[in-house]
Amino acid sequence: MNNTAIVGVGLIGGSFGLALRKAGFAGQIVGVSSQRSIDEAISRGAIDRGATLEEAAAECDLLFLSQPISGILETLRKLDPLVRPDALVTDAGSTKQIIVEEAKRSLHRCAFVGGHPMAGRELRGVGAADADLFRGRPWILTSPLTSNIDHPLQTWIAAFGAREIVLDPARHDRLVAWSSHLPQLALTALAAVLHDLAPDAAEVAGPGLIDTTRLALSSFDLWQDILETNKIEVAAALDAYIEKLRTLKSDYEAEFAKGSDFARALRSGRT
Amino acid sequence: MNNTAIVGVGLIGGSFGLALRKAGFAGQIVGVSSQRSIDEAISRGAIDRGATLEEAAAECDLLFLSQPISGILETLRKLDPLVRPDALVTDAGSTKQIIVEEAKRSLHRCAFVGGHPMAGRELRGVGAADADLFRGRPWILTSPLTSNIDHPLQTWIAAFGAREIVLDPARHDRLVAWSSHLPQLALTALAAVLHDLAPDAAEVAGPGLIDTTRLALSSFDLWQDILETNKIEVAAALDAYIEKLRTLKSDYEAEFAKGSDFARALRSGRT
Repeated sequence: MNNTAIVGVGLIGGSFGLALRKAGFAGQIVGVSSQRSIDEAISRGAIDRGATLEEAAAECDLLFLSQPISGILETLRKLDPLVRPDALVTDAGSTKQIIVEEAKRSLHRCAFVGGHPMAGRELRGVGAADADLFRGRPWILTSPLTSNIDHPLQTWIAAFGAREIVLDPARHDRLVAWSSHLPQLALTALAAVLHDLAPDAAEVAGPGLIDTTRLALSSFDLWQDILETNKIEVAAALDAYIEKLRTLKSDYEAEFAKGSDFARALRSGRT
Repeated sequence: MNNTAIVGVGLIGGSFGLALRKAGFAGQIVGVSSQRSIDEAISRGAIDRGATLEEAAAECDLLFLSQPISGILETLRKLDPLVRPDALVTDAGSTKQIIVEEAKRSLHRCAFVGGHPMAGRELRGVGAADADLFRGRPWILTSPLTSNIDHPLQTWIAAFGAREIVLDPARHDRLVAWSSHLPQLALTALAAVLHDLAPDAAEVAGPGLIDTTRLALSSFDLWQDILETNKIEVAAALDAYIEKLRTLKSDYEAEFAKGSDFARALRSGRT
């Protein structure tokens, strides 16, 4: 791997660049992004320089697409005539089926593997990028790289301290609907109903409510694409959650036990 | 105020004793609790010695009831023949209407004011007690102490660094249904539905899900009394939450905006 292009240099893209450098990557790191992000990413040491997508694709054998999902789809549609045949294109989109389908449809001249580093922060943009953002976190790949592509991406993922997990795109999208998208909607709805019907509840709010509503701070422009590209799984999870809330009081004790079992298992790494 | 009795020396009762001492209370602090809690509370400096309820009521002019709600109700039913006429009885129960009604019904020989210090920790028991547990937190009183009772309890609450808020019991119970009981049920239900239908979601869980499910670790034996004594308000909040979840997708953008407005207001102290 000689040169890497990061397309979309925000929190995830910037952290990818910083993590590559920290892990000893010696090639060029080129950023494709807004001028403001490029300038900030260079000053943070996350990339060496900015480039157009055309230039970056001509020079780089790894392309990391870390835009919002709709941006990744758009890039995939343009990329095929631009890439080097020895390149690997991967991405960091939060849903995988639609992205992997688009890559199959549009990208023929080089290899592609879908990716999803499960890491984030409340802060956004390359200013919040962190070389250790991926440490200890799952990094999903949509197919086993080693079986069909000879590429050091896996080695870098391991060097970042991330846990590589291979999941097919459908299973990925189902799991994140439950583990990430449903919790987001549950907390957004909670804060929204408090906003509508009990804004004065904040008068007596303890630290618990502040913790609980943290997710409700999430920005819709990140979530719009995610909810749009995972509609069916999200609807199924939301329906099951509503049903659980409807029947909760018929056996509070059993539901508290199940809930604390799950929460404890999550903390112990066992489920 | 010469001597204080703490009835139920757990996290809240123990913290009350430590906070009194830190604030300079010079009288005796007597604990009414299990022998194990008494021993631990003495060694932590939260109380001076253990006593029976009869002994404590005979000696003390402040009685702080910090048992579970059902224990507070039971104590109130026994207390009237035991108390000194110059005593003030207060409590730390998480719901207030049923407790204040029981005090009106049972306690005639001395004064009573309902209380609810809005503080807690994940850990329980006097071992987790903290002299600063109440600092910066609301401390609800169900009637203005100064208007009818000449008592330094208010001064101690201020000395603990807590914010005294006077709320009538009905308004208190409505506000905590929204700010505390609904969030608890929302998160218990979320963790329980993950337990039932998507235990494998934990494979890809990021730190967000761990934070989000923290409340689901709450113990049912604390919540049983709370849910039992605030049924009507909890049911109303839960119904409104279910309706919000059902209609969420008709305008995700507006609901994200409302949710983040509420979450931000909570952090700024403005709602």
